Parts: sequence; C-alpha cells; structure tokens
Amino acid sequence: MKNFTSVNDVPNIEKLVQDALNAKANPLKMNDLGKGKTMGLLFFNPSLRTRLSTHKAALNLGMSVMTMDMDKHGWKLEFEDGAVMNANTAEHIREGAAVISQYCDIIGIRTFPTLTDRKQDYSEHILNQFMQYATVPIVSLESATRHPLQSLTDLITIREHQKTERPKVVLSWAPHPKALPQAVANSFLEWMIAANMEVSVTHPEGYELSPEFAQNVPIEYNQKKAFEGADFIYTKNWSSYNDYGKILAQNSNWMITPDKMAVTNEAYFMHCLPVRRNVVVADAVIDSKQSLVIQQANNRTYAAQAVLKNILT
Amino acid sequence: MKNFTSVNDVPNIEKLVQDALNAKANPLKMNDLGKGKTMGLLFFNPSLRTRLSTHKAALNLGMSVMTMDMDKHGWKLEFEDGAVMNANTAEHIREGAAVISQYCDIIGIRTFPTLTDRKQDYSEHILNQFMQYATVPIVSLESATRHPLQSLTDLITIREHQKTERPKVVLSWAPHPKALPQAVANSFLEWMIAANMEVSVTHPEGYELSPEFAQNVPIEYNQKKAFEGADFIYTKNWSSYNDYGKILAQNSNWMITPDKMAVTNEAYFMHCLPVRRNVVVADAVIDSKQSLVIQQANNRTYAAQAVLKNILT
Amino acid sequence: MKNFTSVNDVPNIEKLVQDALNAKANPLKMNDLGKGKTMGLLFFNPSLRTRLSTHKAALNLGMSVMTMDMDKHGWKLEFEDGAVMNANTAEHIREGAAVISQYCDIIGIRTFPTLTDRKQDYSEHILNQFMQYATVPIVSLESATRHPLQSLTDLITIREHQKTERPKVVLSWAPHPKALPQAVANSFLEWMIAANMEVSVTHPEGYELSPEFAQNVPIEYNQKKAFEGADFIYTKNWSSYNDYGKILAQNSNWMITPDKMAVTNEAYFMHCLPVRRNVVVADAVIDSKQSLVIQQANNRTYAAQAVLKNILT
Repeated sequence: MKNFTSVNDVPNIEKLVQDALNAKANPLKMNDLGKGKTMGLLFFNPSLRTRLSTHKAALNLGMSVMTMDMDKHGWKLEFEDGAVMNANTAEHIREGAAVISQYCDIIGIRTFPTLTDRKQDYSEHILNQFMQYATVPIVSLESATRHPLQSLTDLITIREHQKTERPKVVLSWAPHPKALPQAVANSFLEWMIAANMEVSVTHPEGYELSPEFAQNVPIEYNQKKAFEGADFIYTKNWSSYNDYGKILAQNSNWMITPDKMAVTNEAYFMHCLPVRRNVVVADAVIDSKQSLVIQQANNRTYAAQAVLKNILT
Repeated sequence: MKNFTSVNDVPNIEKLVQDALNAKANPLKMNDLGKGKTMGLLFFNPSLRTRLSTHKAALNLGMSVMTMDMDKHGWKLEFEDGAVMNANTAEHIREGAAVISQYCDIIGIRTFPTLTDRKQDYSEHILNQFMQYATVPIVSLESATRHPLQSLTDLITIREHQKTERPKVVLSWAPHPKALPQAVANSFLEWMIAANMEVSVTHPEGYELSPEFAQNVPIEYNQKKAFEGADFIYTKNWSSYNDYGKILAQNSNWMITPDKMAVTNEAYFMHCLPVRRNVVVADAVIDSKQSLVIQQANNRTYAAQAVLKNILT
Repeated sequence: MKNFTSVNDVPNIEKLVQDALNAKANPLKMNDLGKGKTMGLLFFNPSLRTRLSTHKAALNLGMSVMTMDMDKHGWKLEFEDGAVMNANTAEHIREGAAVISQYCDIIGIRTFPTLTDRKQDYSEHILNQFMQYATVPIVSLESATRHPLQSLTDLITIREHQKTERPKVVLSWAPHPKALPQAVANSFLEWMIAANMEVSVTHPEGYELSPEFAQNVPIEYNQKKAFEGADFIYTKNWSSYNDYGKILAQNSNWMITPDKMAVTNEAYFMHCLPVRRNVVVADAVIDSKQSLVIQQANNRTYAAQAVLKNILT
C-alpha cells in the first residue's frame, strides 16, 4: 500500500481487517517494524481520537512520532499554483509537502472541507496537492470528503459483532446544531459497499449524499421504517450536499431514541464520536449495552496500526 | 497505588519519598518498567514544570508520552449528566475519559478551579468525573483543590534539607496581582500533617483555608512572629476561601523579605514556582543560598517517577 | 562544543560539515549516543523546518524530545533583573532557564527580534539571559540576529554542490510584504567569511547590514551586475538595519527571475524557506533544476545532528 486516503487504496479490505484484529490481539508483536522511522502527524483542525490513536499505533510499531498543529506551529500554506504570495500565505504546498517528506517516513494529514466551495472540497484539492508534492506515503486522518481510518474502524467493529454473514446496516442522519462535513457518511457508505454489507441510508429530504458516494444505496425517508430489522444503526450528522454546507431544518425528531431502536433486530448503536448527547442520541441509547461507541474508538488504534504496517512492509 | 490525586491515595508516604530519592540517585535504573506503555498528559491550562517533569519521569521509566492540550487540540468537554448538548460542548466526559483510557496506560490530568463556584471546585467535580469514567489509573497534575505531585516534591525537598527530626515548617501567604487557587496551600498542609511536621500557617485575616485542609494547624496573623524559629518558610499566594476566589486587599507588606527571614532559624525558602519576583518574594531572598526553589523544581521529576513506579508495579 | 549560537562556537567548521555529511550518509549510525538523554525544544514563535528537523536529528541520535511552545504552554517570561513582577510576566528567566535545564540535557531555543529596539536585539538579550541561567548546553534555533543552524546547512549544501575550490557566492536581498529579521543574512555572511568563500552582497540602498556582520564584504547595489559569474545565489529578504526594522520601499523589481539568473555562471538558487513565490522568487527559478531549496531543508536535519553529536561527545 503506498497511500491510504480511501477504500480504493486498499487491495484487500478483509485482509486489512484481519491485520487490525491481529494487531488488537497482540499490539506490540511488530514493535520492531518501524524502528528508526518517523511518523509525522499534521493537523489543520482539532482532533482527539485520531491524534492519540494514530500516535499510539505508530508507537506500537516502534516508530517515533512528530505532531504539528499546522494552524498554530507552522506557516499558513498556499495551495494555488502560480500564486503571487504577497498576502497572508507564507509557504507554498510545493515546498511544505516536499520538505516535511524529508523529515518523516510517513505523513498523516487531517484537512477539513470549506463547506462553502463544494467543487473545491469534492476535488480534494488540499489532500491532492499534498500528495502531489510529498515524496513519502500519505495517510488521510480525515479529508474534505472522506474519513477512511474511521470507516476501516467501523468495518472492524461490525466484523467483530455481526451475527449473520451479511448484516443489515443502516446509516442514519441525526440532528446537530452545527454544519458538519459529509466525510464520515460518504466514507462509511464507500466501505460498506466494498465490504458487501446490506447497507441503506435514512435522512430527511434534502440531505441526499453526493452521487459519487450514494451510488445505488437505498434511501428511506421514514427513519423508523428504515430501522426495522436493522442489525447496526450507524448514526452521523452531515450538512446538505445539494444546498451545500447548509443545515436545512432542526429535525430534532431525528434523534436516536430507545423507541426507534426497539424496531430493530436488537441492533448495535454506532457513532464515530465526539457525539452530542441528547441531541444526536438519547442517553438511554448510547449508555445501553448495545452501544459500541467506545469499542469503535478503541479500534481506531488497530485500524491505524494495520494501515501503517501495510505501508511499512 | 491505583490513582494519585491526594495524600490519601498513598499507603506509605515515607516509602514514596524514599522511592523518589532512589529515582533521583539513579534515574534510569528502572528504564524497562514502562516499556511498551504510554502516559497521556492532558492539560486544560498552561504548565511548564508539571508538563516537562512528568514527561521526563515517564521517559525515565521507559514509557512513551502523548501530550494533549485539551483546550487547543480537542473538543470542549461536557461534565453534566443528562445534558442536552446543543450549545458549545462537543464531547461528554463519559466518552472522553473512556476513549482516552484506551490509548493510554496512565492518564495525568491538570484541571483548574473556577474560583467562582466553590461548591463545584471543592467537590472536585471535573477530576472525579474523569476518574469515574476512566478505566486506567489517574494522576492529578493539579486539580481544583490539590496539587499532590507538588506536595510530594516539597516533602522530598524538606526531607533532604531538614536538620532536626521534626522541623518547624511555616506556610506563609504572600501577595500576588491575580486571584490564584488554594490548591498548593491546601495540599501542602495535607502532606505536612501526614508527614508529622510541626506546621503552622500565617496569612492576613480573611485568607483562612478550607476547614477540610486547615484542620487544627495553628494560624498566626502576624507574619514576622510566625517566622520566628522556623526551619522552612513555604510561600504561596492564594485567594480567599471564605469570600471565594477574591483578592481582599493588596497586602504588599506580606512580601517575603530578608528582614523577615532574619528572625527564622536560618530557614530555607521554598516556593512551587512560577514566582513573581519582588511581589511575592524579594530578589535577595530567592537568590540567597537558603533558597530551595530550583531544587524543588528538580524534585518534581523524581516525585512523578516515584508515583508512576508505584502505579506500574 | 558547549553551546551553539554562532560560528564562533565552532572550533573547526569544516570538521562540522564533514560530521553532517557523515550523518547524512548514515543517519542512525550513532543511534546510541543520546540514549537516556532528552532534548528540550523551546519556541516563542512559529517554526516548521527547525521544529521538525531538530526533533528528527535528536531522534536519530537516540535522544528523547520534549517540545514547548513557550507562548502557548508556559508562562510569560520576565527578562529584566530587579523587575517588580506585578504586571503580565509570571516567571523570571532566572527560574525558567534553571528549571528547564534540570529536565533537559540540551536545550534548543528560538527567539525573534523585536525589530523595534535595535540595541536590545543586537545585544541578544533574550538568548544571553537564557544562556546565563541555563546549566546545560544551549543550541540556537534562530535568535534575534543569527540563525546558525541554517547557515551551517547552507554551507553543507554549498560544499555538496560547489564546482570550484572557492565559489562565488552572492547574497541577494529580495522583496517581501512583511518586515523580517536580519538574522539569516547576518549569519550567512558570518559563515561564508569563516568558510573562506568569495562572498558578496547585493541589496537596494538603505538595506546595509550591521557592520558587525557586513565586515568588508563587497556591496553591489546593481543586482544584475552582482549576479554576473555567480556560482550560488542566496536569496533572503531583510528589513533595514539603519532605519531599524523598516521596509523602505516595495522594490518589487528585486524579485529573483530567470533573466537575472541567466547572467550567472549557471548558479544554484538557494533560500532558507519558507519563501513567498512570485514575490521573492519567480516560479521558473525555484522550480528549475538549479534550485537547491528542498535539499537545503533536508540538510537541516544533518546540520542539527552534527551539532548535537559534538555537544554530546
């Protein structure tokens, strides 16, 4: 594996899941693999799980880690070719990516979408510019339109808990006070399709995902109906793709509640965290024994470890 | 030792002091004890000594360290049960503490008091919520009402310098332009009592400490009289407990000066740092050979190392 | 070598260059040298190359690294002796430097000039105060008037590419929208003189460097004429020394362009980065095969590694 930015970078996803489960069973088994190598973690935005779990994964493989908050420690980067840099950007991505590549053996990078310029966001302009000028493997720690380490984690967690060969997985929109990226939802669908899950999506009208990710995944606008017989309820808010980056309405009745979970097939509840309690999900659901949110977060370490292992070998 | 948040967590404080002195004599002797283990350091506030000395202590024991500035790198945490999180908190402590516990073998956490809500501060609401939902040992790097790693350091430093079996130790309030927590003073008394020192306190009227910590420690409102015959002068500013979080008056005449030190038994001068020179203490005192402030700071490493060793073994 | 703050700290600069080239050939060869030792990196300002390359150099030598953003993580430092600290500084450099020295075996520190108080800047007040009160070796990661790790890097890069024994090196001023320090230019001259290069400088009138650094280096106010026959064009903006810290005029015609490079002896283009494209230098120059900027940045690691090695041995 050269880079890890989407499911398309993965030759065999079930093998990658197995690598992660092996890492979970024995985290330090390959502690010599990364000796003398350095992982760079670059953040343009806040992060807790990604920051710590990717760091831990690199440590488990014997790598050293250097973390940069690009927005606080570094210089504002320019991403446009030919730019006359006489304003607020102090370093071009051409130099930035090439230089950091010389200090790190693998670079993890987190970027967020503008949520105002759909074309730029969906072209993955920033991530692609970084990949173009970097000379070492790049791991996406979430990009404008995808969060592949989260999706791999989600797949691992489903594989650990599924009771049937092809479980019914429902991706449910949920309310949130702030406009959020579509990245987690996009990426989740991409991986569920690749893993041949029986996946469907439910959301209020107007929250249709990009056709590139929605594919032919069935949409059910009646949330409770969508939940019927589900084995896994995967919850996430996202802002509108069509009315780009907007919150269309409050839809507070879309919160995940026990009465909705009651119509499922004793489904597990999943969320990538952080989650706003009693807005996205009721306490009674996230605190129930069916909630997998803490296990998901734990699997972030092993997802990252499997990815790094495949890049290093 | 499971957690380290107050003297009450310590089964044998003199043994802990001895562990620290052993670590100081040979810092790398137990360099294999923490191999493959990770220390998480979480800060909600600035820190220099605690940040570096605890990091160094963990390194000396062979641990890896991951530091998070929670206020800058992560998400604003919610500490109230049942909260409807539709405002500015993005993650509940229930998830936050449980998740971080999966990436770290020991978590160090620094929290500061509100200095406005005494009941909440003295209930140690934030630290306790963290401990309740964490699943690994917690080390306080200073909490709303205590600073136990500092107090252990202070005890070590006194043990290194005391000339009599039961030295006379005076805790003296000193002026400061900003309202500060009572944590260092509270904790110092708690540890001095436990270590059976002849301890007393001197401060202007109105700065009486919480009865929980003041116990029956003698109070002398005349600073110079309090200093008579003292072996150790431990200086610290704190804001009022009774008129909670307030600075009652400037009291600039409470600065520690050579003429006050002159009435002691050639006492050592102690302070936890950072210290405002010529406000809290005169240059002539802190720069004298009786000043132990730099040695205290050095002992922070070995205090932390002793605590981590006792948690790891 | 005790400290590394200018070329004057280096007993034999060609030996240091050779140490760096040896480190580059085999970065992990001395991976045991720093075992159990800790490098502290203290920043008062943003940094990317210095932060990562010095970290990487320390890792290559087996050291642990603790990085502090002094302006964000710590307390505001007081540098004046006798100060009555009742305003916004919370810790005196006397304590700060002495305390950090106890947690680190080597301290790297970056400070920037005020660009308003020339006397203070050129006295290197902050760096010198730090060195006076620190008790371990100090490595300048750029100070008010010098950037010696950059200059060593530049010398290494020239040594790798020079085709004649005494190449013609031209330091050229270039335009920039913000007022920048003279440190890189000062330091570059200091090292080029010490390395016996045929060095000259070109800049608009009014940008004469401090006599301490300009020495008797020839000045040519006609940039194109200065470039004739040059083997290396080293570009950097700096603000005025005489009209201290000021930008005197836009001088956009001083940008480095292909037509200017055409009169050189197929000169290499050098810059310390970050660089503002199409302001300081045209894309066509920095993207040409004669551009060494990425290699320079790479050599930062080995320059730092050579310096640390000489301090540790």
